[in-house]
Amino acid sequence: MVKDIDNCSAEQAQQRLNSLIKPQGSLGRLETIAIWLAGIKGNPVPQIGKKVVLIMAADHGVAREGITAFPPQAGNLMIKNFLHQGAAVNVLANYNKTRFVLVDVGLSGEAVSHPDLFVRRIRAGTRNICREEAMTRREAIAALELGIEIINKEIDAGATIVAIGELGIGNTAVSSAILACLSGRDIREITGRGTGLDDCALTRKQQVIAQALEVNRPNLIDPVDILSRVGGLEIGALTGVIVGSAARSIPVVLDGFVSSIAAWLACRMNPQCRSYLLASHLSEEPGHRIVLEELKLEPLLDFGLRIGEGTGAVLVFPLIESAVKIINEMATMDEVGIKLLN
Amino acid sequence: MVKDIDNCSAEQAQQRLNSLIKPQGSLGRLETIAIWLAGIKGNPVPQIGKKVVLIMAADHGVAREGITAFPPQAGNLMIKNFLHQGAAVNVLANYNKTRFVLVDVGLSGEAVSHPDLFVRRIRAGTRNICREEAMTRREAIAALELGIEIINKEIDAGATIVAIGELGIGNTAVSSAILACLSGRDIREITGRGTGLDDCALTRKQQVIAQALEVNRPNLIDPVDILSRVGGLEIGALTGVIVGSAARSIPVVLDGFVSSIAAWLACRMNPQCRSYLLASHLSEEPGHRIVLEELKLEPLLDFGLRIGEGTGAVLVFPLIESAVKIINEMATMDEVGIKLLN
Repeated sequence: MVKDIDNCSAEQAQQRLNSLIKPQGSLGRLETIAIWLAGIKGNPVPQIGKKVVLIMAADHGVAREGITAFPPQAGNLMIKNFLHQGAAVNVLANYNKTRFVLVDVGLSGEAVSHPDLFVRRIRAGTRNICREEAMTRREAIAALELGIEIINKEIDAGATIVAIGELGIGNTAVSSAILACLSGRDIREITGRGTGLDDCALTRKQQVIAQALEVNRPNLIDPVDILSRVGGLEIGALTGVIVGSAARSIPVVLDGFVSSIAAWLACRMNPQCRSYLLASHLSEEPGHRIVLEELKLEPLLDFGLRIGEGTGAVLVFPLIESAVKIINEMATMDEVGIKLLN
Repeated sequence: MVKDIDNCSAEQAQQRLNSLIKPQGSLGRLETIAIWLAGIKGNPVPQIGKKVVLIMAADHGVAREGITAFPPQAGNLMIKNFLHQGAAVNVLANYNKTRFVLVDVGLSGEAVSHPDLFVRRIRAGTRNICREEAMTRREAIAALELGIEIINKEIDAGATIVAIGELGIGNTAVSSAILACLSGRDIREITGRGTGLDDCALTRKQQVIAQALEVNRPNLIDPVDILSRVGGLEIGALTGVIVGSAARSIPVVLDGFVSSIAAWLACRMNPQCRSYLLASHLSEEPGHRIVLEELKLEPLLDFGLRIGEGTGAVLVFPLIESAVKIINEMATMDEVGIKLLN
């Protein structure tokens, strides 16, 4: 059950913006961000509150097909780097005073033990979608439920806005497979170079995705079936995070292609999720633009990022905070009129 | 005399970025910002240091022609609003811990007395360029020199990066007139609605610009002649700020159309200024895109701003700081390799 956004508060935010001492509409996108947040928060003068970035990590059986720039076991190394605060998203989360939450929802190999890591493996990586389904339907539902559980805990602990990210070697291939199901588009159009494939590997990636769709034949009108047959555990968990956030009226800042695919799955499950989403940036991955256009989300930045991990989502927190500060702190025409008379 | 940027430091910054634990180039625009700053600062791991936003305010005789959304005397009201911390740029400067410097280089009407305002009027607004030259050549040079003087004082006081902005009722018309001289383009292509003109007023604005060019016939290869005949005092002062910043190897963050016109004038005076410029955003004003393309500057944001006042320039400080934090704080592949062995 997702509430409609509060159009009355959004309307009042628009009126307040119009009353500020500036030409109407002259703050462009900053105004639409403030209005969006006002509608979600049910407050014409919204606050951003407590920020959290939630990163879901999992491995993909399909990564064994040689379609990734990094070896399949790189996931565990990256986890350790996160825990050493060495990743771009750590740096930006620290800069933005954002709580960092990392969940191992399905890495393979030895699980890392660290107080800052939640190990909640649904399975040790997905199966190879070239040959069989990624996971069972029950596992896909468990991933969704895990995402809902985690975001609920964060909201209970005070989170008021969530940026999402992922870590999963092979997950742009999986996201392109999901996108093929959701959009019906040609695989060549929606498959990109991930973190850095050459032409030959890109062709291989396209063949692998075609094969995965042929072998699994997902039910195109059932997002859970798509997720279980050609999806990923981290994508399922992020989908759960989005549905769970929307259900509690918490705004979600998307990162790149993979998190946006999770957003599309969430919107298939409940179209009202859409109102709670903000697209932080347009990534290099060609499928990303298609997803955002479909969801009618306009990215704030076009920075050529192709890193995932929630980096772009945390990067835009200052832009959201700027919009919030402006609607809260700028003088109104009336105030200035009064002040200037004194 | 403007120094070349330090290509060696820029190259070392590129190498450092390549050594960080991420796919090469995967941080896109954040990497190019870090490299740009490294080249200017002569430090492969640059810091942003002490930020300042410098706003030049002046009136324009041509505003009496009914080509502005605000009455000509609105400039003084806006000044008071700045001094009451009520403008968008005040809010963002406070949020970004940025020193705010406001200079009256040529408002008309009674000068405001306030400890935070430098009143350094070169003349009380320009003449109406429809009928005569905006200012004398001597006054244009005085505006340039004032900009140089002000930025030098700020740099002496510790400023290490400067955002620029302006306040001047009528100054998009003046900027379009300058752009016509610099670009040779058709007036209809480069004239916009400023802070909000209707179709009829837009046509009038185009006629006024055409008349100003016809009456004044600036020498197109002499930027000081263009400035004095169809320019503005705040534009001249900002041009001086840019030249002065570049001469001291201080990076300049441009705001919208008007500040970018000042940048083009500065680059006409000394093409090496170009290396010190960052375009914060692409505004609604159609001429802005033309200036940025000519200067080969790619704006960080496309937010539909049309407010001026340095707002967009200060808005992007967190993006620049994010780039700086990343090159300073992310782990290198080597560091992680060593850590992971322990």
